[in-house]
Amino acid sequence: MSLSTLDIRFPTSRAMDGSDAMNPDPDYSAAYVLVETDAEDGHTGHGFVFTIGRGNDVVRAALEALRPHLVGRELEPLLADMGATWRLLVHDSPLRWLGPEKGVMHMAIGAVVTALWDLRAKRAKQPLWQHLASLSPEDLVDLVDFRYLSDALTREEALDILRRAEPGRAEREARLLEEGYPAYTTTPGWLGYDDAKLARLCREAVDQGFTQIKLKVGADLAEDVRRLRIARETVGPDIAIAVDANQRWDVPEAIEWVRALGDDRLAWVEEPTSPDDVLGHARIAEAIAPVRVATGEHVANRVVFKQLLQAGGLQVLQLDATRVAGINENIAILLLAAKFGVPVCPHAGGVGLCEAVQHVSMLDYVAVSGSMEGRTIEYVDHLHQHFVTPTVILDGRYRAPLTPGAGTEMLADSRATFAYPNGPVWADA
Amino acid sequence: MSLSTLDIRFPTSRAMDGSDAMNPDPDYSAAYVLVETDAEDGHTGHGFVFTIGRGNDVVRAALEALRPHLVGRELEPLLADMGATWRLLVHDSPLRWLGPEKGVMHMAIGAVVTALWDLRAKRAKQPLWQHLASLSPEDLVDLVDFRYLSDALTREEALDILRRAEPGRAEREARLLEEGYPAYTTTPGWLGYDDAKLARLCREAVDQGFTQIKLKVGADLAEDVRRLRIARETVGPDIAIAVDANQRWDVPEAIEWVRALGDDRLAWVEEPTSPDDVLGHARIAEAIAPVRVATGEHVANRVVFKQLLQAGGLQVLQLDATRVAGINENIAILLLAAKFGVPVCPHAGGVGLCEAVQHVSMLDYVAVSGSMEGRTIEYVDHLHQHFVTPTVILDGRYRAPLTPGAGTEMLADSRATFAYPNGPVWADA
Repeated sequence: MSLSTLDIRFPTSRAMDGSDAMNPDPDYSAAYVLVETDAEDGHTGHGFVFTIGRGNDVVRAALEALRPHLVGRELEPLLADMGATWRLLVHDSPLRWLGPEKGVMHMAIGAVVTALWDLRAKRAKQPLWQHLASLSPEDLVDLVDFRYLSDALTREEALDILRRAEPGRAEREARLLEEGYPAYTTTPGWLGYDDAKLARLCREAVDQGFTQIKLKVGADLAEDVRRLRIARETVGPDIAIAVDANQRWDVPEAIEWVRALGDDRLAWVEEPTSPDDVLGHARIAEAIAPVRVATGEHVANRVVFKQLLQAGGLQVLQLDATRVAGINENIAILLLAAKFGVPVCPHAGGVGLCEAVQHVSMLDYVAVSGSMEGRTIEYVDHLHQHFVTPTVILDGRYRAPLTPGAGTEMLADSRATFAYPNGPVWADA
Repeated sequence: MSLSTLDIRFPTSRAMDGSDAMNPDPDYSAAYVLVETDAEDGHTGHGFVFTIGRGNDVVRAALEALRPHLVGRELEPLLADMGATWRLLVHDSPLRWLGPEKGVMHMAIGAVVTALWDLRAKRAKQPLWQHLASLSPEDLVDLVDFRYLSDALTREEALDILRRAEPGRAEREARLLEEGYPAYTTTPGWLGYDDAKLARLCREAVDQGFTQIKLKVGADLAEDVRRLRIARETVGPDIAIAVDANQRWDVPEAIEWVRALGDDRLAWVEEPTSPDDVLGHARIAEAIAPVRVATGEHVANRVVFKQLLQAGGLQVLQLDATRVAGINENIAILLLAAKFGVPVCPHAGGVGLCEAVQHVSMLDYVAVSGSMEGRTIEYVDHLHQHFVTPTVILDGRYRAPLTPGAGTEMLADSRATFAYPNGPVWADA
């Protein structure tokens, strides 16, 4: 087996797409890894870390640092025991020192884990959600590292959760294939858009069948109140509106700001403060109830999610496809959420996050929580055309992907065009 | 101004120095950065991140990613307002995405911040501790970013702490220069050593005047009990013994293991579990009292330290010179510790950590907490010969360094000899 790594960047800052209170000018990017083998099936495994531009090369360097663990190794034993493969990478002591289990190195490990799952699902001729949902409860828990979790979730409790969901799997899979999975859209809500564009995109969201939208807030309170009013007037009373502060506030400021927004119907308040601040989230959640706190896209690992759940710091769990160490860790997080009875509503958007994370939510529905109630996956209509199996949204719902793999394969042409700094999009700029 | 970066590795795994329950074969390493200017004084600034081998190149890539922020810029305004410089680097939104404020990117920012401080102190012709301790309370708090801290420590409270300590500065500085700062030694305690070596090194520690030693634990309970007994019999009842589990345990296991050690006289139990687990540390601390919990060498940033203090998760705060984003963030952590009345006993050892972190503790004594009571800096007698101003230990105490700078400059000869992979030590292996 061999690895290739790429630095791929889309010049999104040229159009202000994706601007928020913390990230004014992102170039949506992917530090990309490709696992190739000499097997006759010709399948390759694809994974990536989503970043917003500068530093994408640092993640690529971290992908390169994983090469000695993989290159020249026999692939089959790695794919056959993905629980052991995860531990091999995450618990390598010198690489662990660089986190531990957080930041650049942890995300890079996640991309390699994803690439291996992509390859395994392609070989099994199944989309990843279905491949995972066809594993036995025992095989699923074997994917999870319970280190540091056992005070909140033991292997036995996790097995119980999965066994309880087992009888209904076939029925739920049929329903998922029939109805799809609920989505909400962030397309209208970026801070860089003017009022007319905000209103137009809100209308379009409703027309497209979405039942929830999300607005970025946190830069200016009067502006936020005004934009929230425009959105509410445009979408009407039946569409849910969430707001997202992208970690802009301190704890007391978050509480004051949300109270000043004065809207108890908000679907949730997202990332009110530092993603590391478990106790802060708990304090905010208590103070702004009944409005719920949502967080997760920047939560470093399962240990922090465990505490956010233990402390009541979140009421909506927004896991991300490329922040933690891949599918294995996201299964741990699904199990924690199920244990605490908190809905998982993943973060998506960026580059390929919608394509990747839908598999996690669909696994959750079929084999873990067993419910779509109160659950929804973020959707941003952006950059999907660069993927081999772009997400399909119909009537505001993700259609379950049917193509084998993890959804993470970018078109070869896009990989070449947006390669940084030598692809034509960058070399010509 | 220009930057050079280096990958420097010492082949310490060949002798099993530094082995513990989580890190069996480290090659102590430094991802190193050098700030050079065209100023006539000829001074250069030196900083580094300590790692344990593989992945040191990833940190070096992160140092390289900071180049566009610095190279070609005028140095003087950066040095004159180091608070603004810190925010410039830490809040750069694409780089922040890679943490936020944790892991590889955050540590690399810390190394650059340290290199700038090294240069500033050299220009001021003062050792860094003294340079910082000569700043006004206002100038010191201006170095601190209070974002995410204000629910536990406001700028005004920090100012109060510094102002209360101001009258005694001259007296404490004189005492520090006279007596030095307390140290404890980890030299005897590594897991890879046999009993005879353990006993010999314990005896030597006492002979050298240390009043506290530390043993690594967590791999095997019976072994730990036996080694603790050998150490206790060797050093006698008046020498304190701390134990260090290096994050080996889950929360319930930590509580059981420490109880099974059965020694209420332990100075502290260090890193009982994941450094991210604030709530877990609090639960352990409550259960093993009166034995105290110590942690910090892997704590990612000031936000996690804030919570460990808020939750009672640590009773001994072990900040590290190269884990957080440099001196500025360590000053924030000193102020948090002072607010909560918790002693700071830094982590050291590794490559150059003793040389670097002593400046933080000495600043703490002169200008922040104003006390050496119950405070001690870790000391490991290892690799000091590679530094231009190696630590000086006398009668178990750090002598206050008098040479201008931050203590972080490695000898040019060592930088060349241990350069990885082309320096002679590696090329010849």
